[in-house]
Amino acid sequence: MSDLWTVRSSSPAHDRDAIMRDGNIYQIANGHMGYRGTLDEFGPAECVAVTLAGVFDRGGDAWREPVNAPNGAYTQVAVDGQAVSVRKTKVRSHNQTLHMRNAVFERTTEFEIGGKTVTIHSVRFLSLKRPHLGLVEFGVRCDRAARIRIETGIDGNIWDLNGPHLRQLKADQSGDILAVSGTTNEAGKAVAVAEAIEADLGPWNFENRDGRCLRTIEFDAVAGRTYRFTKYFSVHAGVDGTAGDAAVATVRDARTLGRTACLAEHDALWTERWGRCDVGIEGDDQAQHALRYSIFQLLIAAPVAGSGNSIPARALSGQVYKGAVFWDTEMFMFPFFLHTCPEKAIELLRYRIRTLDGARRKAQTEGPGFKGAFYAWESQETGDDACTYFNIGDPLTKRDLRTHFRDKQVHISGDVAIAMWEYFKVTGDDSVLLDGGAEVILECARFYYSYAYFKRDKNRFEILDVIGPDEYHERVNNNAFTNMVAKATFEIADAAAEYLKRKHPEAFDALVGKLGIADELPQFSEAARLLYVPEPDPDTGLIEQFDGYFQLRDTSVEALKAKRIHPDEYLGAGQGLAVPTKVIKQADVVMMLNLFKDRFSNEVKRANWEYYEPRTEHGSSLSACAYAMVAAEFGDLDFAYRYFLKTARIDLEAKYRIYVGTTFIGGSHPAANGGAWMTAIFGFGGLKACETHVAVDPRLHRNWKSLRFNLAYKGDVFAVGISHEAVEIAAAPGNTAARTFVVWGEAAQCAPGKSLSVKRKKQVA
Amino acid sequence: MSDLWTVRSSSPAHDRDAIMRDGNIYQIANGHMGYRGTLDEFGPAECVAVTLAGVFDRGGDAWREPVNAPNGAYTQVAVDGQAVSVRKTKVRSHNQTLHMRNAVFERTTEFEIGGKTVTIHSVRFLSLKRPHLGLVEFGVRCDRAARIRIETGIDGNIWDLNGPHLRQLKADQSGDILAVSGTTNEAGKAVAVAEAIEADLGPWNFENRDGRCLRTIEFDAVAGRTYRFTKYFSVHAGVDGTAGDAAVATVRDARTLGRTACLAEHDALWTERWGRCDVGIEGDDQAQHALRYSIFQLLIAAPVAGSGNSIPARALSGQVYKGAVFWDTEMFMFPFFLHTCPEKAIELLRYRIRTLDGARRKAQTEGPGFKGAFYAWESQETGDDACTYFNIGDPLTKRDLRTHFRDKQVHISGDVAIAMWEYFKVTGDDSVLLDGGAEVILECARFYYSYAYFKRDKNRFEILDVIGPDEYHERVNNNAFTNMVAKATFEIADAAAEYLKRKHPEAFDALVGKLGIADELPQFSEAARLLYVPEPDPDTGLIEQFDGYFQLRDTSVEALKAKRIHPDEYLGAGQGLAVPTKVIKQADVVMMLNLFKDRFSNEVKRANWEYYEPRTEHGSSLSACAYAMVAAEFGDLDFAYRYFLKTARIDLEAKYRIYVGTTFIGGSHPAANGGAWMTAIFGFGGLKACETHVAVDPRLHRNWKSLRFNLAYKGDVFAVGISHEAVEIAAAPGNTAARTFVVWGEAAQCAPGKSLSVKRKKQVA
Repeated sequence: MSDLWTVRSSSPAHDRDAIMRDGNIYQIANGHMGYRGTLDEFGPAECVAVTLAGVFDRGGDAWREPVNAPNGAYTQVAVDGQAVSVRKTKVRSHNQTLHMRNAVFERTTEFEIGGKTVTIHSVRFLSLKRPHLGLVEFGVRCDRAARIRIETGIDGNIWDLNGPHLRQLKADQSGDILAVSGTTNEAGKAVAVAEAIEADLGPWNFENRDGRCLRTIEFDAVAGRTYRFTKYFSVHAGVDGTAGDAAVATVRDARTLGRTACLAEHDALWTERWGRCDVGIEGDDQAQHALRYSIFQLLIAAPVAGSGNSIPARALSGQVYKGAVFWDTEMFMFPFFLHTCPEKAIELLRYRIRTLDGARRKAQTEGPGFKGAFYAWESQETGDDACTYFNIGDPLTKRDLRTHFRDKQVHISGDVAIAMWEYFKVTGDDSVLLDGGAEVILECARFYYSYAYFKRDKNRFEILDVIGPDEYHERVNNNAFTNMVAKATFEIADAAAEYLKRKHPEAFDALVGKLGIADELPQFSEAARLLYVPEPDPDTGLIEQFDGYFQLRDTSVEALKAKRIHPDEYLGAGQGLAVPTKVIKQADVVMMLNLFKDRFSNEVKRANWEYYEPRTEHGSSLSACAYAMVAAEFGDLDFAYRYFLKTARIDLEAKYRIYVGTTFIGGSHPAANGGAWMTAIFGFGGLKACETHVAVDPRLHRNWKSLRFNLAYKGDVFAVGISHEAVEIAAAPGNTAARTFVVWGEAAQCAPGKSLSVKRKKQVA
Repeated sequence: MSDLWTVRSSSPAHDRDAIMRDGNIYQIANGHMGYRGTLDEFGPAECVAVTLAGVFDRGGDAWREPVNAPNGAYTQVAVDGQAVSVRKTKVRSHNQTLHMRNAVFERTTEFEIGGKTVTIHSVRFLSLKRPHLGLVEFGVRCDRAARIRIETGIDGNIWDLNGPHLRQLKADQSGDILAVSGTTNEAGKAVAVAEAIEADLGPWNFENRDGRCLRTIEFDAVAGRTYRFTKYFSVHAGVDGTAGDAAVATVRDARTLGRTACLAEHDALWTERWGRCDVGIEGDDQAQHALRYSIFQLLIAAPVAGSGNSIPARALSGQVYKGAVFWDTEMFMFPFFLHTCPEKAIELLRYRIRTLDGARRKAQTEGPGFKGAFYAWESQETGDDACTYFNIGDPLTKRDLRTHFRDKQVHISGDVAIAMWEYFKVTGDDSVLLDGGAEVILECARFYYSYAYFKRDKNRFEILDVIGPDEYHERVNNNAFTNMVAKATFEIADAAAEYLKRKHPEAFDALVGKLGIADELPQFSEAARLLYVPEPDPDTGLIEQFDGYFQLRDTSVEALKAKRIHPDEYLGAGQGLAVPTKVIKQADVVMMLNLFKDRFSNEVKRANWEYYEPRTEHGSSLSACAYAMVAAEFGDLDFAYRYFLKTARIDLEAKYRIYVGTTFIGGSHPAANGGAWMTAIFGFGGLKACETHVAVDPRLHRNWKSLRFNLAYKGDVFAVGISHEAVEIAAAPGNTAARTFVVWGEAAQCAPGKSLSVKRKKQVA
């Protein structure tokens, strides 16, 4: 059983599925790197991975993916000549714990070897203070005298999906510090790992064996005595030479500081994080635990300040999805950061600003005469698209299927523009607009204008030939979600231009001059007005997902799946089983109703929800939270609750799909984690931070007594407590101004240091 | 060996492939019905088919197809108790002959039975004078005395692809006339077959057995004596009761007339046809024979006057392609009729006028807000589209593939409009315009206007999301062929409106009023101007087949085919092997260059030909002739010659494909036959009949001494003779006016009854 701050298991991963699952669940990360939840003695066969943020490489013809570093946390113990591993040795007891409070992974295993009980205990963390540093405390004890051999060091045997990525891997030694370094195939970037030991076990021997750079020691162990050592390991990437030196310096400095101090500074930062970002759910431990786990996943993935990185779709849990950033980040993860730690939200936006040129290149190459910024569907460090045209392997023919994710999922640009603008609206901070955000917004609008067609006989712009969120229907016209996103982008471009012109006229002139966009600005205004978005049917309230959707064949998800020849058969992509049917992969119209919730009535939300939900496969982890949030809005709280748990517990339950076609997609699901936070705060909490005020319309599920969280708004911080009877809002003493909250429709000011309590009025039937 | 007016074989069809092949090669038809080239004793297992023009039915869930009638030509002989058939009996010699001069099929077979030689000789034709009538002369002889039994009558066992189509098939007798009739499933249309015998063999017995309505006779045959009889059979379709009576009346009347007279009237009509339509090629018997065979195929398929039918893609050779009319008719067959027997050309146009409402219905159902006429890709009797959305079976998955032939091959409407206008230009006859042709043209333009999008930033209309002639690339934008056809349609609409306004103002006003199209006419003019058509690259002369074609992967046809998992695997349809490559199914840009030959230089033609030809699979029988014609134009006469033979001999060689995916597509290829005629006359003859004159720019292949043909032009007839040195043109005495011929660039008049000779000038190098 886990307490509310830990995840625990008493059975070590024994097969491939469990290894994959535990690797995700128990992973730790610090934004710079991730370390999968594997055990000290594991190697590439057990999918150990030290995945680096923002370092990519291509090996041969396979796709580019993040580089996994050599494993500096490797330790293998042998007792009486027998190597000890949960995979080979008899395990008497095992406990592994993820401590979410400070992102520490701990394991204790009792092995039985020749009648002796050998206990291994280790603690591992990646320093939040020192992003390049990892630390392992390791101890081994035998209940009877035994000959113990410890080999530890750096394992250069790397688990890669499409590796190897490091050429000329070489081991080195600097005093008693071990180092392994190599260079990437493509960019010749150096990746260096160093390891230092703090121990009192006697002199170590050094050897390079089986791809490992090792130190070993062998001794006669006294019964019942624990033999301990601390490993410091570091991973640096960069220019050759300096990376190696930096890696050695990092571990040397850390060792000088000592493990207690290293842990203390790490803990302090985590305490500060949790203080701002934790959410309390009273009365529902399962929800509390799952939501905290979700928040934890987002926090460990948050990019290091100034790194220029964002959060990939599988975070730092490995190389799946090419380590690429998708719309997941802006649409599902960004809101959490925006409302809790805007300094991380701005990192995510800066990544898009930094990769704007990549988006410009994509626009120029993806179509005839596209202009502006067409963001990558799968974005790596340059913003060029890592998404392949043939993106899914077909288990039936063993051929790669042509998908149009890269070239037709044009909503990505608007998703980015919306996040830019949302940041400005919620934080009031216009620095991101001035530092490239406005340029991104205008370039996104420019892209949509060049992509759109005008229909003369209908006097409207249309967005043709796209994929909406529902990826099973490719190349559709007038997808409601996409059109609305494009329309919003034109509106935002208009508003951003107006704002800059008014507040920062020089910056505005410089930007307009740089982009040569003066003539186009009025076109964006016109397009905002004349862009067609499918309207709710006046009788039924239904919005057609795209032109012709309602004419598709109606069938059930189950009936469709029963037709599969192979269980991993992809249902979309041209001839997929779902293509001619109304079965959709994930929330699409409902996603739009959620994103633009102010523009639609609850009746429309309910009507579309009830129509589309039974037709949704939920084949994407992004689907459940959208349905949950909209259900909460129109009042189906039981559904919302069920789908909240589904999205919050996705990695804990590990019931997700591991293969799409022949393509491996295992890994963690930070977008679902972000969706869990949104469902709690926006869905049940009913929070909506607007430009002029914060609306709070709570609709807690009956299982919850209260919901407590902090809100960052306009540079200020508020503690919000929601119960079934009342909403309490407390402004931090350091806040800069009184802010308006509209709780249950009632507006009130909350000045710095003050608090506010609004009681729920009795419902009039 | 065949002489130049016959097709002969001395081996009877013994296996399925040969049966299919001979059934096509030796078929006869008279526009009302077709009879496959099968032998008297054959039944459904040998694919006997009496395919009716314009009578369609759906059996169960399978697709609609033309109805095959019961076989009134069935005869089975038994000698000494042993049934005689080429499939079971020892054949000593066999000769089967198709007499093209009068569309007669003849067979003589010597069988060996118990040491005796039995000779069967039969002659079969379908009366050109009496479309419902067929006639068989049958004789049997044994070299030694034998017991002979003849069973003949009507075989109600029908070969169908998707049958049965005739319910309640019942046998009847009216005096000594046999009759079988049934009604179609869908429309309850009666199909009645009658059979009468003229013989002097003694009394017949009558019986219905094994699905056959039979008369039998058995006698002791004298050695060496031939026992003869004549069968008259008729097929009527229509209202129940009257069809049966009509069928009986047809055979009764014919028998009264007698076989000699029936043959004589039939022959006379064929002589008249050949007199107008034959083409003489001096010096090249193979070409002469193949071209004559091609012309023969077109003539037997030509619809009966006033029937309201057109020519299906497989003519009357069976039920393949649903007996439907495709663009094949207007683009590949129509020119032959237009230039030789315009009274048949107008039948083809009237079919499209008659089915205009079907095209209107299709426009309304196929897309959001489409207007006007979107002609059926596969058109049956109503003009509703018989083309299914899932049109090709996939041999790999056994599923039907979604193809977009029906919904995206929008060039069909323009193909129809172009033919309408071409008829008016070449014949000078505006009756077809007044009788619905102008309405068709305007409705086609209206369709394109509703289909087109305007690109604001490029100030042009575009035609998006189509399939051009190359069906391997679906859903492409700005296909050069399609855009040019649409542009021509707008131009034609403009010209037709102008013409009517000027010449027939009342008809114009009535039409504009009926269609409510007054406001749209100026839009058509604007669209004709502003519709984008991909231009030849100024440096290379290349025209991009569609947006992005040049970015596709370059590979060879052979390399692509080598990747197939199954030999019948379809190369298009979403995930087909050809889709991501430059490999195309058939002429597309080159088809456009041929159709709009006046608009492009020879340099552009050659450049595109050289680029596209190696990338063309020629997976359609429509491809070879387009490449041949363009090659002739820019001077590669050897290629043109090779591809002329390929297209003219397609059914004779039977090297075509029988399956696409799992879909059976065997049958004859009248469009290729039309292509052969065009290649001879337009390609080598260099003939181009324009509104004001007829241009003749011959470029005969060296194998040909001369080319002779008749030309129907503006209601007049001219005999044209082309040699390497000179062109001779003789106007018929009954011609109405002098016409201008421009031969080798030199204009001259040819008055009624006069002739004209233009000598080729010496080439200056």
